[in-house]
Amino acid sequence: MSLLNENFLMLQANYLFSDIAKKVEAFRNANPDAKLIRLGIGDVTQPLPQACLDAMHKAVDEQACSATFRGYGPEQGYDFLRKAIVDNDYTPRGVQLDMDEVFVSDGAKSDCGNIGDILSKDCTIGVTDPVYPVYIDSNVMSGRRIVLLNASPANGFVPAVPSEKIDIVYLCYPNNPTGMTLTKEQLAAWVDYARRNKTVIIYDAAYEAYISDPEIPHTIYEIEGAKEVAIEIRSFSKTAGFTGVRCGYTVVPKALKLAADDGSMVELNHLWNRRQCTKFNGTSYITQRAAEAVYSPEGKKQVRAVIDYYMRNASYIREKLQGLGYTVFGGVNAPYIWVKTPEGLGSWDFFNRLLNEIHVVTTPGAGFGNAGEGFIRITAFGLYEDCVEAMKRFETLK
Amino acid sequence: MSLLNENFLMLQANYLFSDIAKKVEAFRNANPDAKLIRLGIGDVTQPLPQACLDAMHKAVDEQACSATFRGYGPEQGYDFLRKAIVDNDYTPRGVQLDMDEVFVSDGAKSDCGNIGDILSKDCTIGVTDPVYPVYIDSNVMSGRRIVLLNASPANGFVPAVPSEKIDIVYLCYPNNPTGMTLTKEQLAAWVDYARRNKTVIIYDAAYEAYISDPEIPHTIYEIEGAKEVAIEIRSFSKTAGFTGVRCGYTVVPKALKLAADDGSMVELNHLWNRRQCTKFNGTSYITQRAAEAVYSPEGKKQVRAVIDYYMRNASYIREKLQGLGYTVFGGVNAPYIWVKTPEGLGSWDFFNRLLNEIHVVTTPGAGFGNAGEGFIRITAFGLYEDCVEAMKRFETLK
Repeated sequence: MSLLNENFLMLQANYLFSDIAKKVEAFRNANPDAKLIRLGIGDVTQPLPQACLDAMHKAVDEQACSATFRGYGPEQGYDFLRKAIVDNDYTPRGVQLDMDEVFVSDGAKSDCGNIGDILSKDCTIGVTDPVYPVYIDSNVMSGRRIVLLNASPANGFVPAVPSEKIDIVYLCYPNNPTGMTLTKEQLAAWVDYARRNKTVIIYDAAYEAYISDPEIPHTIYEIEGAKEVAIEIRSFSKTAGFTGVRCGYTVVPKALKLAADDGSMVELNHLWNRRQCTKFNGTSYITQRAAEAVYSPEGKKQVRAVIDYYMRNASYIREKLQGLGYTVFGGVNAPYIWVKTPEGLGSWDFFNRLLNEIHVVTTPGAGFGNAGEGFIRITAFGLYEDCVEAMKRFETLK
Repeated sequence: MSLLNENFLMLQANYLFSDIAKKVEAFRNANPDAKLIRLGIGDVTQPLPQACLDAMHKAVDEQACSATFRGYGPEQGYDFLRKAIVDNDYTPRGVQLDMDEVFVSDGAKSDCGNIGDILSKDCTIGVTDPVYPVYIDSNVMSGRRIVLLNASPANGFVPAVPSEKIDIVYLCYPNNPTGMTLTKEQLAAWVDYARRNKTVIIYDAAYEAYISDPEIPHTIYEIEGAKEVAIEIRSFSKTAGFTGVRCGYTVVPKALKLAADDGSMVELNHLWNRRQCTKFNGTSYITQRAAEAVYSPEGKKQVRAVIDYYMRNASYIREKLQGLGYTVFGGVNAPYIWVKTPEGLGSWDFFNRLLNEIHVVTTPGAGFGNAGEGFIRITAFGLYEDCVEAMKRFETLK
């Protein structure tokens, strides 16, 4: 018997961003004087909000004397942050949550990856195609069967609910990579599907802060009955520039119960709490103070300003490309623009052309799944001047 | 079919520290004026080293402008920290490691809990009894069979190598909870066992900074051949007071290979890298700068001073209790003192007596496993004055 988790050997080589890095490196070596514009990786570029910086300095100072030093914190997060999350992200949207339904973590990626710990290895997994690869890879590692749900222009990048039962479905809206959103009605159809089929929805709302359209739900719990079927994962990374600071949270409502083999009903909240208490030791206190500051009056203003900055980029890119005749999706309530390649070019072909001809780095859509073939993803997280320059260069593209 | 990971339902209720907290709370309510001394929980009390505070302030300031802002970092940790770890924790002990054999994380508990992801669910697991509960609980969650290895005064709290094959063995030295260590010869016997049986050792060296005896190994890689069989987990929590800052690291040598079912040899380093890249997004940059500062000349001096402070507590407690006729283990190369209860008292009985009669909080050994029955654990992480006062109170114990 092998001591290995053999499922790891089933993982597809996923070197999207390292492949891109290699191509960019080769280009730079060949063209040392070219000014590259990077609109590829989904990482933020603006500095942290001042309120967060101030909060971190203060929290660091507290660690300088025994009286205010903080050692082990609660694995679930400090109450000051859990309360701020409930009061600011949920109560104003008419969603009532208890603090102990919120689990603070070191980021949404950890939670996305680890949430499967509390679920059966025999669950079937539904993911949209194209998709954020973590949903697939973390489940391949557990040996689960994956069902792809096609997201394309034909369905507005929101798959219809399946006819068969899928046990666990990952939904990410506003979507990475397509930048598309769903309406309350579309989300309600998924909640209804989940309730009928005893499906658990894992709702990744990492980009909710980019929503401006009042018809688009910020949280799945705006849909009645969603607490009985959905886990929601959130991040401070894209909301407040925390990609290097590391903080996110996951909501596991106490109303979400699954039947055990013995017929008893088990709260997933209880299982996730046990998972986190066993395999996690809480998020840095200093980081949690920074996250709390996101909800302060100054923090809110500063965060808004950064999001507006990125969304100005998104609008600019979107409009310019449309003006140039491209078919463009996303970029309205999300920081990603999903661009159809011209003339039926493959994702990588168009990527190469943009890199070599106009020195703009994008992400080939095929890297997010087969249904991403024929698209590229452009992010709005760059500097505005770079977006303007990149669009000028698109005009020159032969 | 249940969608739950049913293994969670097999977990024993493990409420050790919450049970203690409840008892302490009840005592406080009944005795509001009593001055409690807490020598129970293994959390540090001294402030962070100034070098770490300075490094964090500087790192926070870097996040204030785009030019120095850090977004997503490498999932494996920044090279500046991986290099500092190799150069300071390994090279001086004659252990050659490559930087990419070191994986920085948000703490040893996460790594202890998650390391099983890369191993087969069918592995048998060996753990000492008494033991840090994470090794057991994280494996029960995966449905693995646990073999307990008795650690008692008779074997100096170092179990002999088993006669049968165990697939994965967790060893923690200096030990939590017993405070005992093993010699190079004893560790070499385990490495030899692992090599003969194709066993993987998970070596938890979270307390290595407390070793002063030159005969005691700081890392398992001081033993020849250990790189082929052992993963080592380290923490900055007890070394430098990072319990609330969250940083640790795990070494997975490239020489550690396991046979897959198809007969190919697979590097665990490669699997752990894939696991971390999929389910983790790196440790906070600010935290990593703080960890790097632990290895600066000032950082080293400051860390040494704090460890010396705690070890003065340990010596004091140890000697006083021995003088009072107690049988005492640990506390020489570790910050825990493992005390035999008097007159055959149960762990909880003695705990209650200490709480109610002299208002000192300890940890009942039985909370760490059946073999911990008849012991209590006292930590050296308190204030020196409190340790002195606690020992005075022990003198008055009837």
